[in-house]
Amino acid sequence: MMSEETVTATLLLSCPDQRGLVARIAHFIFERGGNILDLDEHVDANEGLFFLRVTWDMQDFSLAGGKVPAAFQPLADEFQAEWMINLTSIHNRRRLAIFVSKYDHCLQEILWRHGLGEFDADLALIVSNHPDLKPLADLHHVPFHVFTINKDNKLEQEQQEISLLKQENIDTVILARYMQVLSSRFVGEYPNRIINIHHSFLPAFMGGNPYKQAHERGVKIIGATSHYVTDNLDEGPIIEQDIIRISHKDCLADLIRKGRDLERMVLARALRLHLQDRILVYGNKTVVFE
Amino acid sequence: MMSEETVTATLLLSCPDQRGLVARIAHFIFERGGNILDLDEHVDANEGLFFLRVTWDMQDFSLAGGKVPAAFQPLADEFQAEWMINLTSIHNRRRLAIFVSKYDHCLQEILWRHGLGEFDADLALIVSNHPDLKPLADLHHVPFHVFTINKDNKLEQEQQEISLLKQENIDTVILARYMQVLSSRFVGEYPNRIINIHHSFLPAFMGGNPYKQAHERGVKIIGATSHYVTDNLDEGPIIEQDIIRISHKDCLADLIRKGRDLERMVLARALRLHLQDRILVYGNKTVVFE
Amino acid sequence: MMSEETVTATLLLSCPDQRGLVARIAHFIFERGGNILDLDEHVDANEGLFFLRVTWDMQDFSLAGGKVPAAFQPLADEFQAEWMINLTSIHNRRRLAIFVSKYDHCLQEILWRHGLGEFDADLALIVSNHPDLKPLADLHHVPFHVFTINKDNKLEQEQQEISLLKQENIDTVILARYMQVLSSRFVGEYPNRIINIHHSFLPAFMGGNPYKQAHERGVKIIGATSHYVTDNLDEGPIIEQDIIRISHKDCLADLIRKGRDLERMVLARALRLHLQDRILVYGNKTVVFE
Amino acid sequence: MMSEETVTATLLLSCPDQRGLVARIAHFIFERGGNILDLDEHVDANEGLFFLRVTWDMQDFSLAGGKVPAAFQPLADEFQAEWMINLTSIHNRRRLAIFVSKYDHCLQEILWRHGLGEFDADLALIVSNHPDLKPLADLHHVPFHVFTINKDNKLEQEQQEISLLKQENIDTVILARYMQVLSSRFVGEYPNRIINIHHSFLPAFMGGNPYKQAHERGVKIIGATSHYVTDNLDEGPIIEQDIIRISHKDCLADLIRKGRDLERMVLARALRLHLQDRILVYGNKTVVFE
Repeated sequence: MMSEETVTATLLLSCPDQRGLVARIAHFIFERGGNILDLDEHVDANEGLFFLRVTWDMQDFSLAGGKVPAAFQPLADEFQAEWMINLTSIHNRRRLAIFVSKYDHCLQEILWRHGLGEFDADLALIVSNHPDLKPLADLHHVPFHVFTINKDNKLEQEQQEISLLKQENIDTVILARYMQVLSSRFVGEYPNRIINIHHSFLPAFMGGNPYKQAHERGVKIIGATSHYVTDNLDEGPIIEQDIIRISHKDCLADLIRKGRDLERMVLARALRLHLQDRILVYGNKTVVFE
Repeated sequence: MMSEETVTATLLLSCPDQRGLVARIAHFIFERGGNILDLDEHVDANEGLFFLRVTWDMQDFSLAGGKVPAAFQPLADEFQAEWMINLTSIHNRRRLAIFVSKYDHCLQEILWRHGLGEFDADLALIVSNHPDLKPLADLHHVPFHVFTINKDNKLEQEQQEISLLKQENIDTVILARYMQVLSSRFVGEYPNRIINIHHSFLPAFMGGNPYKQAHERGVKIIGATSHYVTDNLDEGPIIEQDIIRISHKDCLADLIRKGRDLERMVLARALRLHLQDRILVYGNKTVVFE
Repeated sequence: MMSEETVTATLLLSCPDQRGLVARIAHFIFERGGNILDLDEHVDANEGLFFLRVTWDMQDFSLAGGKVPAAFQPLADEFQAEWMINLTSIHNRRRLAIFVSKYDHCLQEILWRHGLGEFDADLALIVSNHPDLKPLADLHHVPFHVFTINKDNKLEQEQQEISLLKQENIDTVILARYMQVLSSRFVGEYPNRIINIHHSFLPAFMGGNPYKQAHERGVKIIGATSHYVTDNLDEGPIIEQDIIRISHKDCLADLIRKGRDLERMVLARALRLHLQDRILVYGNKTVVFE
Repeated sequence: MMSEETVTATLLLSCPDQRGLVARIAHFIFERGGNILDLDEHVDANEGLFFLRVTWDMQDFSLAGGKVPAAFQPLADEFQAEWMINLTSIHNRRRLAIFVSKYDHCLQEILWRHGLGEFDADLALIVSNHPDLKPLADLHHVPFHVFTINKDNKLEQEQQEISLLKQENIDTVILARYMQVLSSRFVGEYPNRIINIHHSFLPAFMGGNPYKQAHERGVKIIGATSHYVTDNLDEGPIIEQDIIRISHKDCLADLIRKGRDLERMVLARALRLHLQDRILVYGNKTVVFE
């Protein structure tokens, strides 16, 4: 039976603020035998919006996991809500694809943390436009697919990639310093499910060579930003950012070295938040329920 | 009418974890016409404890503010909860007393932030064992009371202080680098309502001269810790901590200078959290609902 | 005698890198009886540039303070150096002017630190385009001059301000959230001696309303930047930056509140570095000898 | 010829402060044709001590690298200095041994950074009291030696380890979460050349289970400390520390997870500083020339 396999359910919901939202949602869970493990809500008083994340134990829930969304639909309709319910299950973990080019640091970090069990997901495959990191993928026994990209074959190759992702039932795509810009079509297939790491504290230093830009501007801190990918390059909803101090003693190579550490930490934190269903996107911003 | 004056109510509650807590508490608020503005809960799975903070709008609540606690009592009893409900009111703000000795930096910071409206409370009076900071108190028109302390008169003077605090209806006492240890009797009068700032990242460098201790040990970071005062010196529940990097170039005077900035920032943050009813004490620890 | 009054001398120098620079400069000081208290140098290998800051004790120096620059000139010429020598003297401290508008937090911070002796300078006067902060200036007994600015009188009023600064022998101008853009002429009078605080981590959110820009972009950190003022608004050499984490719970007012603390800390640190002659400007960047 | 192989020389020196130290040392280098690449000095005015680190280019130096110490000896004697000169050479890199038990995170980090070329040293061998991490060592082709330790064989096994280290010409030992306390004899063989990582901001939470101690105390920040190993456990000279914020939501497992990231970053930074000869130990403290 499905309900035996489903361990927890998490509802992410946003809607116009109104009285009784928490009471009615909590009651929906309570009357079906669910035990709330974590509930966090936020009201944006300026915009009159209500945001909620609630996780409950499915062990004694009266519905099988797969039937929860249909049961919740009437309430959601009444609230005019945007919402999703994610179920964690021992037999059905989310599947990840990592896109890389030649830099290995972000991939290393994710492979290592995955091995430690920090992410509640399966690492299904790695895609790259270069063969360089195949040995690393092999070490961790993760299938490695090369799709060489040039000006002429880009859309065609992307179509092959999308087919592969569909076939492999990929839920989330991680751009771990992947040096190609994805087309609108690709992005449209995975809304709020493609996570990128940009090597600056966006919106400073958008575009290429942000460390070079930072060095030339003479800033005293550099940063990294993880965000969902949208059609507008480097402008998607920001998930997580962090910074490190630098000084005049740091040449460009030092910035790149220090930035590597930032990039992998920030990307790993963003991925963890995503996989724990802690991120609710609205407009071009995120609510991160930490 | 009381309910017209009461703007919001905040419930802080801890109890053994059990099913339905959020649903039933949210329903208690909802059925009386309250609109939940902010709800945060936490379950400590290891200890089987449930912690909740919920704030609601009292504007259309069916009960006057003063009657809320009695109405909630049956539910709290059923849950075997420790709890408190704080009401914010336009006519009835919490009253603060600040205790100082000779250092002015923490007092300055609180006076300045109070002037900006960062604290939802009235600064009723300042107590000191030295007259030095009276001019600063006068500038801000806050009554300044000197109670000179020596070995022989300590308990007697404290009794005078307690009388003053009672008479002035003081809710919270802030030790802004007050250089006297309060007696058990004093501490017992204001459980979890006396906030101290200690100039180290406790539990490192407890006791006197923590900067000197830090300098001698050669640490690379120094800290400050704000905590509730208990009978055990420097061992009360920690509210907030922060740190700053130092180097071998910093002599003891530099540590004191850098530490001043930490102390006033950390104390101000702790006070703000306290006055927003964001701190729930259990055992010797705090849950801080940020 | 001048040499008795002069306590220390500090040389800041940059020149093309070449062999023997440190040895020859140290020898210049040594053979005249100076004891080096602090020496820091940096070579930018990519650009072939040498940067040095050296401070020495003038107590037994064979030259009076005022004669040091002329004595050093031949060496500087040989090195093709840009350089300055600053003398600290018990009778001749640097004089500061602070420009403000209506926000008091940066001014408060500087006044308070000045009172504690954190800055080795005299606070000569305050200039404002509004009368609002006069009471604060009066409290600290600092002369307060109002120069109302409108579209028509700007250049004329600036001329008056410059005259006042000249007359008062002002060395450094601090823009403590002064809400007027200075003209090129004004800026040209005080190259690398006008310090501004901008309320973002430049170059992100240049121009007006950076907190509003940050809120709309949904960043997870906000910053503040202190820089020397040049003709290009918000693009002068950066002295110091810092950041603070924010979340979706922070509305625009929270960003402004949190940012206040950043602004005053960053400006105070920049001012201290400047007054200790720790900043060497080259191109549009700074070397900060910390 | 040796001088052709030697790329740079670095002098670390401490002595009683006196006039002319910088000038005479810089002159020593200059007159032999050395070009100073980096010079940093510090005077501890309270203790009357002078500290210096200077690195110079050996390319045109008139002495072979191996002859530099003898040439400098007379000057050092005159200054009553403690000093060392380290030579970097393309044919003669320092050799590292890493000691581990079962945790892999610090080892992983060092192996990965070593592969990127971040450390100017050779990773000669790994020692462990357990066989668990042998596969990881094998992947990186680093010899892995198991020395099982129990109460009875400890000193004997240590003697074997020391023999191995001697035989392999090991310069520096890294304790990468090695769960055995080294004996005085072992420590005495490598003064200021054994680097440990402790999982707390020392001196808070010395001894075992610091994360458990931190969790029980309810601190709001946790830390990690890298230090040289001395006979007094957890009390050696501190090289580097860093912290991360935690909250009541973090259970013990979260502290361990977050702490892992701190530990590997702090250890890696300490190792890099050590290998760049940036650390001068005096008494139980360090001067870190960054």
